[in-house]
Amino acid sequence: MSLLEKFLSTRNYTEQLCAPLNIEDYIVQIATFTSPAKWHIAHTTWFFEEFVLKTYQKDYTHFDDDFNFIFNSYYNNSGKRISRSDRGYLTRPTVERIYEYRKYVTEAIQIYLEGNPDEKAIELITLGINHEEQHQELLITDLKFMFASNPLHPIYDAKFDIINSKNTETGFASVQEGVYEIGYQGNDFCYDNELGRHKVYLNDFEISKSLVTNGEYLEFMEAGGYEDFNFWLEEGLHWKAKNNINSPLYWEKINGVWYQFTLAGMKKVDPDQILTHISYYEASAFAEWKSMRLPTEAEWEIASQQFDWGQRWEWTNSAYLAYPNFKKSEGAVGEYNGKFMDKQKVLRGASVATSKNHSRPTYRNFFYSEERWQFTGLRLVK
Amino acid sequence: MSLLEKFLSTRNYTEQLCAPLNIEDYIVQIATFTSPAKWHIAHTTWFFEEFVLKTYQKDYTHFDDDFNFIFNSYYNNSGKRISRSDRGYLTRPTVERIYEYRKYVTEAIQIYLEGNPDEKAIELITLGINHEEQHQELLITDLKFMFASNPLHPIYDAKFDIINSKNTETGFASVQEGVYEIGYQGNDFCYDNELGRHKVYLNDFEISKSLVTNGEYLEFMEAGGYEDFNFWLEEGLHWKAKNNINSPLYWEKINGVWYQFTLAGMKKVDPDQILTHISYYEASAFAEWKSMRLPTEAEWEIASQQFDWGQRWEWTNSAYLAYPNFKKSEGAVGEYNGKFMDKQKVLRGASVATSKNHSRPTYRNFFYSEERWQFTGLRLVK
Amino acid sequence: MSLLEKFLSTRNYTEQLCAPLNIEDYIVQIATFTSPAKWHIAHTTWFFEEFVLKTYQKDYTHFDDDFNFIFNSYYNNSGKRISRSDRGYLTRPTVERIYEYRKYVTEAIQIYLEGNPDEKAIELITLGINHEEQHQELLITDLKFMFASNPLHPIYDAKFDIINSKNTETGFASVQEGVYEIGYQGNDFCYDNELGRHKVYLNDFEISKSLVTNGEYLEFMEAGGYEDFNFWLEEGLHWKAKNNINSPLYWEKINGVWYQFTLAGMKKVDPDQILTHISYYEASAFAEWKSMRLPTEAEWEIASQQFDWGQRWEWTNSAYLAYPNFKKSEGAVGEYNGKFMDKQKVLRGASVATSKNHSRPTYRNFFYSEERWQFTGLRLVK
Amino acid sequence: MSLLEKFLSTRNYTEQLCAPLNIEDYIVQIATFTSPAKWHIAHTTWFFEEFVLKTYQKDYTHFDDDFNFIFNSYYNNSGKRISRSDRGYLTRPTVERIYEYRKYVTEAIQIYLEGNPDEKAIELITLGINHEEQHQELLITDLKFMFASNPLHPIYDAKFDIINSKNTETGFASVQEGVYEIGYQGNDFCYDNELGRHKVYLNDFEISKSLVTNGEYLEFMEAGGYEDFNFWLEEGLHWKAKNNINSPLYWEKINGVWYQFTLAGMKKVDPDQILTHISYYEASAFAEWKSMRLPTEAEWEIASQQFDWGQRWEWTNSAYLAYPNFKKSEGAVGEYNGKFMDKQKVLRGASVATSKNHSRPTYRNFFYSEERWQFTGLRLVK
Repeated sequence: MSLLEKFLSTRNYTEQLCAPLNIEDYIVQIATFTSPAKWHIAHTTWFFEEFVLKTYQKDYTHFDDDFNFIFNSYYNNSGKRISRSDRGYLTRPTVERIYEYRKYVTEAIQIYLEGNPDEKAIELITLGINHEEQHQELLITDLKFMFASNPLHPIYDAKFDIINSKNTETGFASVQEGVYEIGYQGNDFCYDNELGRHKVYLNDFEISKSLVTNGEYLEFMEAGGYEDFNFWLEEGLHWKAKNNINSPLYWEKINGVWYQFTLAGMKKVDPDQILTHISYYEASAFAEWKSMRLPTEAEWEIASQQFDWGQRWEWTNSAYLAYPNFKKSEGAVGEYNGKFMDKQKVLRGASVATSKNHSRPTYRNFFYSEERWQFTGLRLVK
Repeated sequence: MSLLEKFLSTRNYTEQLCAPLNIEDYIVQIATFTSPAKWHIAHTTWFFEEFVLKTYQKDYTHFDDDFNFIFNSYYNNSGKRISRSDRGYLTRPTVERIYEYRKYVTEAIQIYLEGNPDEKAIELITLGINHEEQHQELLITDLKFMFASNPLHPIYDAKFDIINSKNTETGFASVQEGVYEIGYQGNDFCYDNELGRHKVYLNDFEISKSLVTNGEYLEFMEAGGYEDFNFWLEEGLHWKAKNNINSPLYWEKINGVWYQFTLAGMKKVDPDQILTHISYYEASAFAEWKSMRLPTEAEWEIASQQFDWGQRWEWTNSAYLAYPNFKKSEGAVGEYNGKFMDKQKVLRGASVATSKNHSRPTYRNFFYSEERWQFTGLRLVK
Repeated sequence: MSLLEKFLSTRNYTEQLCAPLNIEDYIVQIATFTSPAKWHIAHTTWFFEEFVLKTYQKDYTHFDDDFNFIFNSYYNNSGKRISRSDRGYLTRPTVERIYEYRKYVTEAIQIYLEGNPDEKAIELITLGINHEEQHQELLITDLKFMFASNPLHPIYDAKFDIINSKNTETGFASVQEGVYEIGYQGNDFCYDNELGRHKVYLNDFEISKSLVTNGEYLEFMEAGGYEDFNFWLEEGLHWKAKNNINSPLYWEKINGVWYQFTLAGMKKVDPDQILTHISYYEASAFAEWKSMRLPTEAEWEIASQQFDWGQRWEWTNSAYLAYPNFKKSEGAVGEYNGKFMDKQKVLRGASVATSKNHSRPTYRNFFYSEERWQFTGLRLVK
Repeated sequence: MSLLEKFLSTRNYTEQLCAPLNIEDYIVQIATFTSPAKWHIAHTTWFFEEFVLKTYQKDYTHFDDDFNFIFNSYYNNSGKRISRSDRGYLTRPTVERIYEYRKYVTEAIQIYLEGNPDEKAIELITLGINHEEQHQELLITDLKFMFASNPLHPIYDAKFDIINSKNTETGFASVQEGVYEIGYQGNDFCYDNELGRHKVYLNDFEISKSLVTNGEYLEFMEAGGYEDFNFWLEEGLHWKAKNNINSPLYWEKINGVWYQFTLAGMKKVDPDQILTHISYYEASAFAEWKSMRLPTEAEWEIASQQFDWGQRWEWTNSAYLAYPNFKKSEGAVGEYNGKFMDKQKVLRGASVATSKNHSRPTYRNFFYSEERWQFTGLRLVK
């Protein structure tokens, strides 16, 4: 697929994801860590305008001068911007106008790519495509979070049962002690945080070929796992008490039966399905209860050839920090990854909401220990 | 006008007020004290369904069983309800469906009124009409608050310049010491909090025939009124410091010139217009600076025949408390007024956003001292 | 008693109240609305230094230049001061040094009074004595609050059973409709907020000669009074839910029996004793349950000759606002009362912790509706 | 030194550190992350009573049954306890009684050790000694924090100028790429989090032999380092804005000159002294400005033979997480370290407040990125 084809299909897929939405569904921001659908589709557009067209397209005219303030996410180098928690206050520009904006920018990039594009611009368009793929996943998870908070439990798409995933393998894979290399190597796209391929020393370990299932987790729950403080990290205890947590996110016990909210509506919890929407605190408490542990990200990366991954973002026992020789890019795109390297955990894998071919074994996703609205799961190591 | 005509014209006027809105504008809740337009138009409908149709219309079928939870405002006797701060999370039911709900209930009331309506039901429909008129004003002020927070400063209606109001009288009116009567008397509708007409003793006072103007308030500002703590109540000082207040709400200084956001867009502050969008704290500080004071609600009511009122809700120096012999109604509608009698101030008058004929000299409006998003002003007494 | 004698006995009584304390007990501030004992004894001293000695005593040398910053309470006109919530952070100056400060200022005032004191200074010393009497009461109530929060339940003074008080009268007293006068009149000391004696119009009412007892309140509790929202003000419901309130302050159910923490330790709740440590919300809910109401402050003042008052601060149904013709004093002492006239309720009476002869029928005490750490009770009106 | 001698000298040293205190200074808790001196001296005593005497000393009588509730820090397995933020509310037990408690427990341990102590008890007493040494450092840093918040700037000990420390070496030390071993090995005491000696792979690096000085940091400040967002982590920017940070903790600019609060009072900032009281955010921003980075804890441990360490706790670029094969102890002491392994950073080294011989190259200290009240500094790597 050419870059232009890849670009156009990515733009198109975002819009497809929005097809089941009413205009109302585009607007609302339930929590600071989520964004309205409208904002996602405008911000991914802004990214191409701000980083590509503004610099590389001669005589480019901005679609609307106010949009930089509204649709910049966190790039300090790109100027002032609306507070993150206020993204849901913007009833204007309308959804219609944002689709006009998308069309305008998509066409401008198409024209630019059909010309004689600069090497650096091509890099940035590639980054923009990957950036939009990340937002496709966030769009789905943010919509799920929004619909779940609605007492009417709206259905996003009855055929889109994103919960449906089971393990295909069982048992444990072994890795031998020794020096290994991790980090990206190759000529395709990767993020700056995957670079600096480097050696690590691993001890012998065995890693499960399957992800923990709802059934296994229900055993933990029934064994009093949420109540026994010995399984929990100190911050996990505070988080659990403060938020009154006693099950994975979206689970609800109705007349003694566990249900979970899905994008296809409320469904009974299936013990054979892979567990999802758990925090790092829950993942590590479960592992502690099993007398096992989570893998480090290096262990996961080395072992990943031996199991079927990509069903869930998997919490690792690694902090999201720079690899040796990490270098952030020049200018605003240097803010893409590096400045978030504090207090977050690395997740490896991909989820059913991840855009096709977006992830890879060296991919480093990162969230806070308490976050659960992504499709997060866990794999055990002993 | 018959009750049915009054009912239909009230229902219609609410919808007219929404005519300039896009669907997006119906959804968002900026602050807990405001509600989305969508919620206003549904809640006023719920009021008729819950208090009239449910009880008095034989074999009435609820439009949707979930709506009681969603569109009940604060009536504990009507069951559980969504948290007030979450009214903006409801992307569903859609705006379209809410208009269907309005139509369904409007028609049901019409049919009911065309039958042989119960005396008590007629009372409740009258209350429902007045209730909807109150929400018409809130709808306007909530929209203004929402548009003002949008960096694009959307225009609600260019012809609807709600700021435009000037005094028609000058000087002071005198009232002689003596026993007077206040409170509603007559056979038309009034709220329970106006009842219990009773005697009060007033001392001699003089009350301004005009409301304070922007020009007079600018003098206060230029004289350092916001900085001199001697003019301010203690809680006003905290409120001012915490929220960094140094002008009325919606005022913004651009290149040395004061502008104010209006429903017709940004406008220069006109010194001859009546001041609005001020807190009780600002009102009382201004009065202190002038070495005068605010009227009590009894003084205002007695003097109101002597001046032209209805331009602004006017802060009084009276707490919102029960009149002697105040009796709240039976059941849920007893929650309408009485339970708010704590810590709020009485405002008298009406505003340019108040529905026609909704207010009267005995009308007791009430807000917290720090609230400014209503069209609030002040009148001096000496 | 001469002014000097009154001054010396007031200063001495404050120190007597501190006699049961260890040094540790002087330091701690549990909540922003309380102050450490140390701060009370220093601030009452500062008042005499700042308002009397600094201005009227020729060549007066400040005891310590830093003390103005530390021991000013809320007088903006007296310069910057430590934040109210930080009064408990001051381990230095030591308690010993503060007693030296007291001695120094007491002696300086004595010398000043033995000379040829200025008329205005005499007024301020009288104010300072009354101010110190108010702090004597706060000292007792703040210590009670502090000891109550200690899991060891320390005893302040086993002989000082401040809870011990019973009604001596029963039945209701009647007051006839008509014009009455309220507000202070006479030549003794009163606060500025009692002045401006003025006429009010009262309707017929009957007021209980006795205060509500623990036994009566237990009936309310047992009848589900805390659970039935219909008895409660809206803000009371929020306060109750947020703070998980289901009994008066300091009450604790141990093995099915109600106890209350007192300055003499934990005691069984005696049904015959007068109820205390309740909020305005609880008072008004109780009255609502009884189908009666609280008196207004004018009603209380007029009726007070007909009953035995002074057992408890009694919540009235009046907001703390200015009397007609209220005038605040010049300069810093003008901040004494006036600037607090917002959102508080008037309490009338006195409590077992009130210094002898400090209160009178025109005395206007004021607290927020949710405050309970004063000895607060209620009297019913019908 | 025998274990008994070591025990007695540790107990004695804690008391020596309290010698300059007044009783008032023992009581106050300024922030949740600090504890009152009184609490430190009681909690270190409780540790011996709870973990040693209660289990191993036959017929041991608790000094006071209430003390477990009050002086347990965070051991869920040892039962309920007072909230961490309420440690400063305890005016009772008095300081005198706590010294009696110390004496009682010190003597009981002495008697126990002079008998025939159990192997496991000896381990726990050794742990208790190390635990008390950690609290000795916290005692000093908590007192500094408390005195610094006092507007009188009290002096702890004029001869105890804890700021006085300079580098003795310059230049960079080199470490060659390869497999190294880190973690404790030997027969002396170490914490469980240092165990599991294991191999790591390090790349070539050069590490500074000196710590960053005040003078170097002033250059960063003068170059606008606090203002340029490109040097800062995202969370660091929020922390800086929210807390209005523009210098290290305890620094104050007076008439254009930088001073710092020390335990010997206010002192001019000396450019040659080693920088201290900085957050991880400031450390990493400084390193970014220098185009260098912080060492990982493995790099630090391997390189530590090549430089003079022990002047400051040094922020590393490593998260505080479990070593491979980390095992927590059985029972309550298992809560000592492991449950804190989330979101904190490792610090290596020791500080001028660290008790003699308490630290070692494998020692893993840990704090949150924003914490500054420990004596924290930084060392650069390139």
